[in-house]
Amino acid sequence: MPKISGFSKLSKTAKVDWICKNYLASNKKAKETLANYWNTDSKLQKLHDEFTENTISNYYLPFGIAPNFTINDKTYVIPMAIEESSVIAAASKAAKFWDDKGGFKAEVISTTKVGHVHFNYEGDPKKLISFFDKLKPQLLAEAKPITQNMEKRGGGILDIELIDKTNQLDNYFQLHCSFDTKDAMGANFINSCLEQFGQTFEREAAKFEAFQNTLPEIIMCILSNYVPECLVRAEVSCPINRLGETTEEAHKFAKKFKQAIEIATIEPYRAVTHNKGIMNGVDAVVLATGNDFRAVEAGVHAYASKDGIYKSLTQVSLAKETFKFWLEIPLAIGTIGGLTNLHPLVKIAMEILGKPDAQELMKITAVAGLAQNFAAVNSLVTSGIQKGHMKMHLMNILNQLEASQDERLKAIEYFKTHTATHAKVIAFVEKLRN
Amino acid sequence: MPKISGFSKLSKTAKVDWICKNYLASNKKAKETLANYWNTDSKLQKLHDEFTENTISNYYLPFGIAPNFTINDKTYVIPMAIEESSVIAAASKAAKFWDDKGGFKAEVISTTKVGHVHFNYEGDPKKLISFFDKLKPQLLAEAKPITQNMEKRGGGILDIELIDKTNQLDNYFQLHCSFDTKDAMGANFINSCLEQFGQTFEREAAKFEAFQNTLPEIIMCILSNYVPECLVRAEVSCPINRLGETTEEAHKFAKKFKQAIEIATIEPYRAVTHNKGIMNGVDAVVLATGNDFRAVEAGVHAYASKDGIYKSLTQVSLAKETFKFWLEIPLAIGTIGGLTNLHPLVKIAMEILGKPDAQELMKITAVAGLAQNFAAVNSLVTSGIQKGHMKMHLMNILNQLEASQDERLKAIEYFKTHTATHAKVIAFVEKLRN
Repeated sequence: MPKISGFSKLSKTAKVDWICKNYLASNKKAKETLANYWNTDSKLQKLHDEFTENTISNYYLPFGIAPNFTINDKTYVIPMAIEESSVIAAASKAAKFWDDKGGFKAEVISTTKVGHVHFNYEGDPKKLISFFDKLKPQLLAEAKPITQNMEKRGGGILDIELIDKTNQLDNYFQLHCSFDTKDAMGANFINSCLEQFGQTFEREAAKFEAFQNTLPEIIMCILSNYVPECLVRAEVSCPINRLGETTEEAHKFAKKFKQAIEIATIEPYRAVTHNKGIMNGVDAVVLATGNDFRAVEAGVHAYASKDGIYKSLTQVSLAKETFKFWLEIPLAIGTIGGLTNLHPLVKIAMEILGKPDAQELMKITAVAGLAQNFAAVNSLVTSGIQKGHMKMHLMNILNQLEASQDERLKAIEYFKTHTATHAKVIAFVEKLRN
Repeated sequence: MPKISGFSKLSKTAKVDWICKNYLASNKKAKETLANYWNTDSKLQKLHDEFTENTISNYYLPFGIAPNFTINDKTYVIPMAIEESSVIAAASKAAKFWDDKGGFKAEVISTTKVGHVHFNYEGDPKKLISFFDKLKPQLLAEAKPITQNMEKRGGGILDIELIDKTNQLDNYFQLHCSFDTKDAMGANFINSCLEQFGQTFEREAAKFEAFQNTLPEIIMCILSNYVPECLVRAEVSCPINRLGETTEEAHKFAKKFKQAIEIATIEPYRAVTHNKGIMNGVDAVVLATGNDFRAVEAGVHAYASKDGIYKSLTQVSLAKETFKFWLEIPLAIGTIGGLTNLHPLVKIAMEILGKPDAQELMKITAVAGLAQNFAAVNSLVTSGIQKGHMKMHLMNILNQLEASQDERLKAIEYFKTHTATHAKVIAFVEKLRN
């Protein structure tokens, strides 16, 4: 297969022509398919094309909504962008279940974000400390052109600390820098500050006579997506006896639910899938609101491993006859900057949520994660996960089989009382056809 | 704000009407915006609507391509679905850099997936062991209707082991089940098998006389997204002196690059962002090929924490004057099932990749992750991350400012030699306008 030079400089049409000719020749309709996904509004399409390099089409994720969420006594409809068939249904179900039990409560615990200037220094640490004392006000002063807008909004640089890490890696030090980025996720802001720190640091180090020839050397300046001090907590609670038709059933459910969480706390094989379910809800909101799900995923999963073993992010308590179930996760997300003011569906998502600030969005997102986890564990300890999952995925399998309207209705009816598997759906439709 | 009952039963139009009336009343164009994103081909739109519940529109992610990847001496164009502006550009740059240095090598190390029947048992473990010995052939036999198609493709159930976990949690045991799911990601297959195991287990336990009244109780049956035995490795290598214009420059770069990886190995704050960069590449391919990025993310990050400290997934060696840089990650992804045969752009993505099987897709995906990490660390230890990042994000800021063609051209020219920040781009355009 051919290579190409200067591909990114080509027009979109030329890019599509090249890929169709060289890599999609066996599919005569490929060009048409790619174009079918273009928006008919060419200005809108251009906006989406320019989000990134070498865009040739729009990848559709379903943009859906989960209604009936009560969070801190306010009603929300939560927008979700997610391809997994059962996620929105599960969220809606959990919202409804908790609606008459006080709904969800959520609070932001902290909002500090961090970044580092990572550097090497082989000399006397005392010299470094006296250099840093002199440097710190200069770092802050020279970052002013970057920070002044953020400061107007009440944010900015919170602190810069010198940290000696030489006990872990030879000659390795950091400037550990903390930030409040208000309603922005803040990656560009933090990285711009850090790179400015790097420049000031290098220039001043060269002038600092005590270093003589043993200058500190900067390795890199970069924000961290690990934000254990940018935390949000979401919770549901109710009297245990409200969890079932009878007191006995309710207590049995609560006990089994607690066992499921305990297993996810001590067994990483289970914890990973347990937390994956939480992230089904979290990422769906993160995507719909134009935030960066890789950043959120990395920070959340690292947080799940912070005690030396990877474990559940949700916890449960049954004390005082009360079922209490909560989630605590780090979430560095924003409601301004990035794609949030640019992607028209992100704007719609923000409007559906009542134009939240970053802290409110943190709460909503955490609630989506908790709701998802409640729904998943609820299914797991009762009917099993496949019933609900395959109910939603059934339509996909029927579409794949190009089932007629009549076949679809019969299959939907039949699989109301039979758990679907891929093979069973195929067999059912084939039987209808013969 | 109002709640609603039976929302999922409404038609899409009725759903859109409800949300527009109740949650988007301040935006007179909301309905139009949502509809603008519908595909004009109503059959195609219906397919996408049915991916999940309560779909009201299509969320666009840019679908782009990164050309010029050499992987195991074969040329690939890698399709990527990703909103972050610099990811495809970085991938393309890394592909080009390694192209004349032997390209990327990748190998699948293992392909075993796992799932568990989690249960409690308060009786004598010896009774459980003798029960399990009797049960095991029955588990396999009764799962036959589910496994027979998979077995035709060479996969199926590999083993079922009884594991005593009571040293970690009172009365907790597992059936640890391993599977080969061939070209399917296999979540539905594994969960269907496990739920069948659960049914057989419960029925047989009730009949097993030695248990008397102390029956084992199943808590849940569920696959694990932690797949440390479904591993892939991607690698690049070249003589160190090929990394720069001069030998000195090349060695300096290699040393700094190694320091960056060492920092990401001992410092979780750095490791999280380092691995996030890897996942930028991995997820872009996972999304474009219709796989489940939450499953992949959870498994990969848990793997990064497996030694008790969260650390870098890439490693580097400079032995024998050779720069060797590699990534090892667990990847449970498929090329059949799920959305892969359903989403027309996923089909296109698979065709662009030459219709790979699951193992080939594992290799390609790992390479995308390694390429992304190489590009990121390369930028970090040389020019800094913001230059490349803001170069791509510049177009987004200009779109946000609704810059004219003339303003755009001037801004692009100016920021070729100046590092852009959000504030600087705004100031530049405002200056042009005054």
